Amino acid sequence: MSTTEPATSAEREDRVLERIDKFRQRRPRLLDEVVTLAHGAGGKSSAALVDAVFVEAFRNEELEQLGDAAALTMPSGERLAFSTDSYVVQPLRFPGGSIGHLAVHGTVNDLAVSGARPRWLSAAFVIEEGFPIAELREIVADMSEAAVLSGVQIVTGDTKVVGKGAADGVYISTAGVGVIPEGRRLSPDLVRAGDKVLLSGTIGAHGMAVMLARGDLAIEADIASDTAPVNSLVETLLEAAPSTRWMRDATRGGVGTVCNELAHACQLAVIIDEQSLPIEPQVLGACDMLGIDPLYVANEGKFVAIVAAEEADAAVAALRAHPRGADATAVGEILAEPPGIVALRTSFGGSRIVDMLVGDPLPRIC
Amino acid sequence: MSTTEPATSAEREDRVLERIDKFRQRRPRLLDEVVTLAHGAGGKSSAALVDAVFVEAFRNEELEQLGDAAALTMPSGERLAFSTDSYVVQPLRFPGGSIGHLAVHGTVNDLAVSGARPRWLSAAFVIEEGFPIAELREIVADMSEAAVLSGVQIVTGDTKVVGKGAADGVYISTAGVGVIPEGRRLSPDLVRAGDKVLLSGTIGAHGMAVMLARGDLAIEADIASDTAPVNSLVETLLEAAPSTRWMRDATRGGVGTVCNELAHACQLAVIIDEQSLPIEPQVLGACDMLGIDPLYVANEGKFVAIVAAEEADAAVAALRAHPRGADATAVGEILAEPPGIVALRTSFGGSRIVDMLVGDPLPRIC
Repeated sequence: MSTTEPATSAEREDRVLERIDKFRQRRPRLLDEVVTLAHGAGGKSSAALVDAVFVEAFRNEELEQLGDAAALTMPSGERLAFSTDSYVVQPLRFPGGSIGHLAVHGTVNDLAVSGARPRWLSAAFVIEEGFPIAELREIVADMSEAAVLSGVQIVTGDTKVVGKGAADGVYISTAGVGVIPEGRRLSPDLVRAGDKVLLSGTIGAHGMAVMLARGDLAIEADIASDTAPVNSLVETLLEAAPSTRWMRDATRGGVGTVCNELAHACQLAVIIDEQSLPIEPQVLGACDMLGIDPLYVANEGKFVAIVAAEEADAAVAALRAHPRGADATAVGEILAEPPGIVALRTSFGGSRIVDMLVGDPLPRIC
Repeated sequence: MSTTEPATSAEREDRVLERIDKFRQRRPRLLDEVVTLAHGAGGKSSAALVDAVFVEAFRNEELEQLGDAAALTMPSGERLAFSTDSYVVQPLRFPGGSIGHLAVHGTVNDLAVSGARPRWLSAAFVIEEGFPIAELREIVADMSEAAVLSGVQIVTGDTKVVGKGAADGVYISTAGVGVIPEGRRLSPDLVRAGDKVLLSGTIGAHGMAVMLARGDLAIEADIASDTAPVNSLVETLLEAAPSTRWMRDATRGGVGTVCNELAHACQLAVIIDEQSLPIEPQVLGACDMLGIDPLYVANEGKFVAIVAAEEADAAVAALRAHPRGADATAVGEILAEPPGIVALRTSFGGSRIVDMLVGDPLPRIC
C-alpha cells in the first residue's frame, strides 16, 4: 500500500487500539498513586489527572480543547455544543439553592459560555438506599424550576440506587446539548493583547454559602449562593460586543483558575485589578476570617469574558442593564507579557502572581 | 386577552412554575417513603418512582415517551437522539468486561435501539478518595477501546472526587448523542398483532457473570458478560427489515421487563415461546441453581426487536450473518389479546404470565 492512500477505517481502528495498548503499559505522569480530594478541586491536580488519564486515553480533537463543552458538527453542517458535569455538593440544600439548581445551571452555563443556546438536558441520579423520597421530590422540583427559568427541557434520564453507605444522599450527573448559531466562534486563539477582561458580577458567594451551610465553622453570615443561569446574559453580551473572544463560567477553582486556563491556552498575560473585583462585603469578610482567597472560590452564575477594548464599555453597559448583570464590570486586561501568567495588581500598587489552585480548600462545593 | 391568542413565553413560564408548586405540595403516589434498592432495579418500583417523581416534575413530551433516548429536532429539521445512564456496577471488573465497557456500550446501545447512529459521548466520573490511579487508567482505557470499536468519540467529561466512604470506588455517568437518519421512525405505536418478536442473541450472561464475580456464591461457572455495542447489528437489521417497528436493549430487568414495557405501551399481548429463548447452558444452569428467572437477568449487548411477520425470516438471516448476531432468533409474536400482557408459552405446552420485575434479585448489575 502506498503511504499516500487514505487509511481505511479498519486501519484507523487498529492504530487507535495500538495506542490504547501503549497507554495501558505506560507509567502515568503523576506524582500521586491514588485519587485525592485535590484531584476534584478544579485546580492544578485536576488538570494533571485529566491530562494523564482522560485526555491521553480518549485522545481526540474535541476533548483536547478542554473547553466547557465540545463543539460538534451534524451531517447537515449545523453545529451543536455538548457538555456534562456531575454534582456531589454537600449539603444538598444551602442558602440560595440546592443540588437540583446546580445540576441544571452548571450545565446550562457550560453550554452558554461556549457560545451555544442551551436546549436539552439529561439527568442521571445515583441515589443512596434510604434517601427520603420527599427530599428527592424537592430536588427534582428545583431542577424542573431551574430548567423552565433557563429555557431548557430535561428530556431523558436514569436512576440508579446503591446500598447504604455507598453514596452520600444523591449525586446527579447532567449532560446538555445546545445549538451554536451560525458564524459564532469563541476561542482562546482569538484573544489579543489589549483586550479587556470582564466579570459578569460579584464573586465568591456560592463557595462561601455552601461552606457556611456545613455549620462546622463558627461564623454566621448572610451569604446566599449565586446559582443562576447565565445564558440570557451571555446572549446580551454577544449582541453588545460581537467581538467577544472567549468566555468561561468561574465555578470550581474560581476566577483565578479560569484566568490561568486562559493565560495558558493563549500564552498571553491576564492582568486583574484587585480594586475592581466586585465582591459582596459579607463574602469578603467571611473569606478574610477563613484566610481564603475569593479569587479561588466557586461561583455558580458568573462568567469571565474577554472582549475587544473598543467594545468593552458597550459590553459592560449592556450587561448592567440586564437583571442578572447589575454588578458586571471590567476587571483587567490582556497583555503580551509575561506569557501564560495571571497577575493581580493589588490595592497597594504592587502586583502578585495568581497561580493555579493547589489543594482543595473547599471540597464538594458543586 | 382572548383565549384563542397564543400564550406568551412569560405566560407559559408562569403556568409551568404553578404546576411545579403544586407538585411540591402533592403527596407522592408511592407506597415507600424512602428510596430502596428495588427502585433502581428497572422493574415495577423503578417505573413507579420515575412516574411519581421525574415524569411528574419534568413533564414534557420527550420524557413522557420513556424511551431509551429522547428524539430531538434541531432548528434545521435534522433529528438527533440523546440518552444518559449512570453506571454503579460492583465489582468494577468482571469476566468479559468492566464498568468502562458498560459505560460506553450501555449508552451506545440506548441510542442505537432508538434508531440513531451513535456519534458522541460525554463521561462524568464520581471517584472515591483513595481510588488507585492505575485502576482508573485501566477503566478509562476500556472506555476508549469500547468507544473505538463502537465508532463513537468521547468528546467531553467531568471529574468529581468525594471523600472516603462517600462512594464505592468509581461511578460513571455517560450521555450520548446520535444522528437519526431521515425518515427513520421506531415506536410502540407501530407494533401490530401478527408481528414477530426477535431477540438478537443469548440472554442472561451479563447479570450472571457479575453475580458470580462477587464471589459470595458457592458456584463456579465459566460465564462472561455479553457487554458489546449493538449499533452495527441494529443497522444490519434495519436494512434487512425496513418495517422494524420498535427495539429495546434488554439491560436491567432483562427481556421480561422490556416486553412488559412494550405490552404496556402498545396495549397488545407479547407472547414468548420458552423453548425458543437462546441461552447458554452454563447461564441456564447457574440461574436454575440460584432460582433466578433468566428472563429478568440483565444483558449488555442484546436487544428485542419487533418486525413485520413477512420480514422476520430475512431479519433473522441478516442478524445471523453478522459476527455479533449468530444466536439471533424469533422468540415470539404479538397478539391482540390479552392487551398489555406478556405471556410465556412453556416447554410443557402451558403458558404463564410474565409480570414486571418486583424487587431486585441482582442489585448494582450495571
